[in-house]
Amino acid sequence: MIHPSIILIRPQMGENIGAAARAMANFGVRDLRLVAPRDGWPNPKASDMAGRALNIIDDATLHATTAEALADCSYVLATTARDRAMNLPVLDMHAAMRELHKQQAAGGKCAILFGPERTGLENEDVIHANAVVTIPVAPEYASLNLAQAVVIACYEWWVGRPLGTDIGPEHVMLAPAGEMAGQEHTPPAPREQLEGLFGQFEMALDAVNFWRVPAKKEVMWRNIRAALTRAEFTAQEVATWRGIIKALSSNKSQ
Amino acid sequence: MIHPSIILIRPQMGENIGAAARAMANFGVRDLRLVAPRDGWPNPKASDMAGRALNIIDDATLHATTAEALADCSYVLATTARDRAMNLPVLDMHAAMRELHKQQAAGGKCAILFGPERTGLENEDVIHANAVVTIPVAPEYASLNLAQAVVIACYEWWVGRPLGTDIGPEHVMLAPAGEMAGQEHTPPAPREQLEGLFGQFEMALDAVNFWRVPAKKEVMWRNIRAALTRAEFTAQEVATWRGIIKALSSNKSQ
Repeated sequence: MIHPSIILIRPQMGENIGAAARAMANFGVRDLRLVAPRDGWPNPKASDMAGRALNIIDDATLHATTAEALADCSYVLATTARDRAMNLPVLDMHAAMRELHKQQAAGGKCAILFGPERTGLENEDVIHANAVVTIPVAPEYASLNLAQAVVIACYEWWVGRPLGTDIGPEHVMLAPAGEMAGQEHTPPAPREQLEGLFGQFEMALDAVNFWRVPAKKEVMWRNIRAALTRAEFTAQEVATWRGIIKALSSNKSQ
Repeated sequence: MIHPSIILIRPQMGENIGAAARAMANFGVRDLRLVAPRDGWPNPKASDMAGRALNIIDDATLHATTAEALADCSYVLATTARDRAMNLPVLDMHAAMRELHKQQAAGGKCAILFGPERTGLENEDVIHANAVVTIPVAPEYASLNLAQAVVIACYEWWVGRPLGTDIGPEHVMLAPAGEMAGQEHTPPAPREQLEGLFGQFEMALDAVNFWRVPAKKEVMWRNIRAALTRAEFTAQEVATWRGIIKALSSNKSQ
């Protein structure tokens, strides 16, 4: 079965990485990606905690940046304890994992981002996401352990899978007849294509001094990116937009 | 709010008891009962792991038998990895926690039983239950950690609680489980604002001869519009995008 990548951003405790791997194994999720873990990698504490899920730890990939870790991903969810004013859709975990299955059925490569234990995801990480997922918690004890957040995500992903998809170790997932009928849904472009578009776009806006007040650029640019990410451009659309930006800004050099 | 009792039967690892307490606290569950814990009680390892949920550990009650631990309970669920041939209803966790809320609304006192780490519940424990709850797991890695099973139960209980039941001391605003949480961002701009943006955009693309082959314009333009419509721009975002297009194409008139 196609399964999402679990991306831990700057995780602090090796034990939590190991416990996350075990939770992934419980629910048939295997691809673990680590962005700049605090204590380096490999980490014996992660291996010790992983138990029989050691293969997930051994196969985990190490990345320097969030962008690098999700370069091949087309649909990305960012887990946060609280809603963010990021102009992104906010889903609960149950709804989010069902959306993930739809994206996967359409051929998309999905990833779920988890932030560091103490602080959660930074805005610069959330900016890569198509949507924010919240796990509702009791307000008097709102700090959810990292591995437990991974448990809940993987559990909801697993129970939300379409029936009949877990036969055989790598059984190919077929969308239930009817649900996908009539939907001609091309998956969103991989993130690295989107990043290419954003890079070009940002340079074009810089070149025309779009921001005027430099201090405003960060928030404005984040909102522009969020709006375009929300649109879930296909690879074809990314190419079209690169052409648009090039055409609109080409006059400068004339 | 009325909440279920979590009953750990012959738990082995103090760390798991502490992690269970933390998971309970995350989801507003407070009553922990222990039946014959292997390493006695109190257990410093449980306290160490509990973090800020220490009060749950301190208030936990110790019982010699399962029957004693659930003496005041009217509706009892037994968690098992596999179905048991016990002639009991078998529910998944999602359905089970919703049943629990019904029982609680009718004045029932509810409990959820969890067995020892290695073996799970014995039949002599399950016999006390009104129903069996299974947590589906991947067949190739079916042993779910005790604390993680408690996480999933408490999470499903919390997201399944009826709306309006958590207003008061434990106030929190939450969207209904299973539905898309209300999107926090402002509603999309009215269509006429979007049309204004499209009109400006189309003129800008015409001005730079973006289409090249005129026959292709109709389909290309339709796709560009569709992608932007999908993004559900707010009124503020429409204004931003009008500014972007103006800035990018301003060089022409210079």
